[in-house]
Amino acid sequence: MNLDNQQILYLQIYEKIKHDIIENKYAEHEKLPSIRNLAKKLEVNNITIVKAYDILEKDRYVYKKRGSGVYINNLNAKKNVLEEEILMETFKYGKLEVEGEINFANSNPNGNYFPITKFKDCINYVIDRDQEKIFAYEDPKGYSGLRNIISKHLKVEEIISDPEDIQIISGAQQGIDLITKSLIHLGDSVIIENPSYSGAITSFKRGGAKIIDVPLLGDGMDLKVLKNILSKKKISYLYLMTNFHNPTGISYSKKKKLKLLELAKKHDFYIIEDDSSSDLYYKDKPFSLKSMDIDERVIYIKSYSRIFMPGLRLGFLIAPKEKLKYISFTKYHTDISTPGLIQRAFEHYLSSDSWETHTKKLRSIYKKKFEISYNLLKRIEHLKLFAVPQGGLYFWVKVDKVTSEALFLKALQKKVGILPGSIFKLNEKSDGWVRLCFADVEIDDIKKGLKILKESIEELYNL
Amino acid sequence: MNLDNQQILYLQIYEKIKHDIIENKYAEHEKLPSIRNLAKKLEVNNITIVKAYDILEKDRYVYKKRGSGVYINNLNAKKNVLEEEILMETFKYGKLEVEGEINFANSNPNGNYFPITKFKDCINYVIDRDQEKIFAYEDPKGYSGLRNIISKHLKVEEIISDPEDIQIISGAQQGIDLITKSLIHLGDSVIIENPSYSGAITSFKRGGAKIIDVPLLGDGMDLKVLKNILSKKKISYLYLMTNFHNPTGISYSKKKKLKLLELAKKHDFYIIEDDSSSDLYYKDKPFSLKSMDIDERVIYIKSYSRIFMPGLRLGFLIAPKEKLKYISFTKYHTDISTPGLIQRAFEHYLSSDSWETHTKKLRSIYKKKFEISYNLLKRIEHLKLFAVPQGGLYFWVKVDKVTSEALFLKALQKKVGILPGSIFKLNEKSDGWVRLCFADVEIDDIKKGLKILKESIEELYNL
Repeated sequence: MNLDNQQILYLQIYEKIKHDIIENKYAEHEKLPSIRNLAKKLEVNNITIVKAYDILEKDRYVYKKRGSGVYINNLNAKKNVLEEEILMETFKYGKLEVEGEINFANSNPNGNYFPITKFKDCINYVIDRDQEKIFAYEDPKGYSGLRNIISKHLKVEEIISDPEDIQIISGAQQGIDLITKSLIHLGDSVIIENPSYSGAITSFKRGGAKIIDVPLLGDGMDLKVLKNILSKKKISYLYLMTNFHNPTGISYSKKKKLKLLELAKKHDFYIIEDDSSSDLYYKDKPFSLKSMDIDERVIYIKSYSRIFMPGLRLGFLIAPKEKLKYISFTKYHTDISTPGLIQRAFEHYLSSDSWETHTKKLRSIYKKKFEISYNLLKRIEHLKLFAVPQGGLYFWVKVDKVTSEALFLKALQKKVGILPGSIFKLNEKSDGWVRLCFADVEIDDIKKGLKILKESIEELYNL
Repeated sequence: MNLDNQQILYLQIYEKIKHDIIENKYAEHEKLPSIRNLAKKLEVNNITIVKAYDILEKDRYVYKKRGSGVYINNLNAKKNVLEEEILMETFKYGKLEVEGEINFANSNPNGNYFPITKFKDCINYVIDRDQEKIFAYEDPKGYSGLRNIISKHLKVEEIISDPEDIQIISGAQQGIDLITKSLIHLGDSVIIENPSYSGAITSFKRGGAKIIDVPLLGDGMDLKVLKNILSKKKISYLYLMTNFHNPTGISYSKKKKLKLLELAKKHDFYIIEDDSSSDLYYKDKPFSLKSMDIDERVIYIKSYSRIFMPGLRLGFLIAPKEKLKYISFTKYHTDISTPGLIQRAFEHYLSSDSWETHTKKLRSIYKKKFEISYNLLKRIEHLKLFAVPQGGLYFWVKVDKVTSEALFLKALQKKVGILPGSIFKLNEKSDGWVRLCFADVEIDDIKKGLKILKESIEELYNL
């Protein structure tokens, strides 16, 4: 500890210990040295240590036990300032999604694809049909008509679900929030893929979970690493995206899906399957983990943001009965219910032919965009694809010897938006990966944009 | 400890310790007796204590520190089974709100008062005006047009707020959830009124707060009790409803409002002001605490559920800038944003004359209902009013020598719904108080319903 500059001593000591706590150099509930011992060691007054410990306690890095000493607090439970700052940073990137003239960062469908007129008709139809019911509190679990039609649609996907097992949610992010609040307890271990969706990681972390990451391979999680963790540690939940994964675009092989279910049963953990893209297949409709879930180990979250319209904030989740009970209860204590207007209008839309027409159209648009992008990306020097996606909206690419941030900034200068891969990594390492998404970029702009990306890479190499 | 019945010993010990933990007979992080000592004291094998401690740990009532011993866990952080069960009970009462032919339990406005046609026009207008923008992600903070018009309206109520200080929320319950997740830390002390809104208490508790209740008098919290608590304990937040309080109907005196602000400044805590009823005044428009908040000590939550239509799930909150930053961030990680369709349609409605017409109409309806109810209630023997409300939707009444539950069940037999007061009490004591709400009861039914209530009380007295 360097104590010889002008800064007040106790603040220096506070900063040093705080830094070490954040860097995990202490264990939870570890005892700090006694005031006398530390004062002696650092050759300062006792009162200096008392002051340092006081602000550590005030900021909740430590707690005191009368007559016993000072102990390290559980940091996961503590929303400390530093963590908030990191999170704010992620948020900033989220906001950046709207910048750049050609935007490969934004993963929301282009507004031109929204079936606005048809949906407006649905709204008017259900207002006339349901009158005041549409503006009264809805069942916290969700409008029964919508749960019924969803249950019917799910049969085609080989998911057998009672409408009573379905919880309507205001988008996938709310599903993750509800699961965190109702099922994940302080100190629970949650496994995530690396890379994964930052919104989920943030939510689990803030809920007090310990996050453990497992590297993702071309056909799913690295099971060797996973098994090794499972042999050593009690895991509560595993969060994944089985089809057209965000950000990598990969899908799990059937073998890995079955193996995961087997492991969940054997090691008594539950799998949170986040599905926002499986409707967007280029060739064959993929199956979800949920459709193979005979032992009820999967909590399935479905979002309509990618396949329909994100601003509606609509999705659903299916969970084993004894878990759904808590989730529905938490939904009530979170926002009572998802607006009836939106649920009922969407129910009407789902019941009509429009749904099939709309999803077919979106699939053909994205498939075309994918093919054009893929053919251009293959030809960019120094650029490596993680995998060739079979559906969805993303390419996960790496540029050797260039950091994600350098490429991100270079492209942004040229008005092309991409997302640096560090956003999807638990430890935010900048290792050259970036996510390209063609949801909001039209074909001409894909061509223009990837040309600019190519130029950006060349410029970085010629520096 | 009674160890002489047939139950397996270690389960008995487990149950006894668990019971004592729940009853707060241990302090947080208190060390339990060593295995050897407890075994000796209870005259059982060491292995019996080991087993008991093991399931206590599994259920997270305690944690072990290697080489040191077994310690009591922080119970607020733990969502233990018992607590969940109590909460489910509250939830059940919430659901009961829809039962009974004459329903004084339900606090939602009657659907007949909803301005459906006008609002339908607003929806169609904004879809045509904003097109795809209305179905894309909205700003997490809320649609700027809506924040602008709200800020303008607030000037009339003497609340000065920059639109940037306003966060749109999906109803008051979400406001409470967001505040809990972003501002309330594990172990923070939160003061509530007794009685208070159970949805808020549940949310704070689940967020890890310690709840301290202060009795409510006819003009607001008992300041003597409050000051006594403040002199002994660091308080983080105080949650209250200043005008037409739920369930008591009381309003804070101006003097108490000013005193609370002074105390907040002096003792460095923040006040969460939950306002769902202040538009429903019978005579004079009341002022909020926020309108007097020169030191920025108030987080103001406004719900449109009572004054407009609850199923829209719409409200807003105002908080000091450095707090709002975290709240907006949490909103993003909770459900991204409140649906644009609803925000934009409501903005259009708020900008028109319809708002003034609608609120005036509601006020006159409720005033009339209040007067009729009040005159009938006064004449019911054994029934005592807590206060005479000057606005809002509630009467808080007590029947001497009869429990809330007995009256609740008796009235329910006769198809009249009321809410037992225990729902609003922290310790769920059944002391004869009940809440009567006339939001969803028409005048003829008020007369019929209160006659039945009178008969119910008489029957209970003649038992």
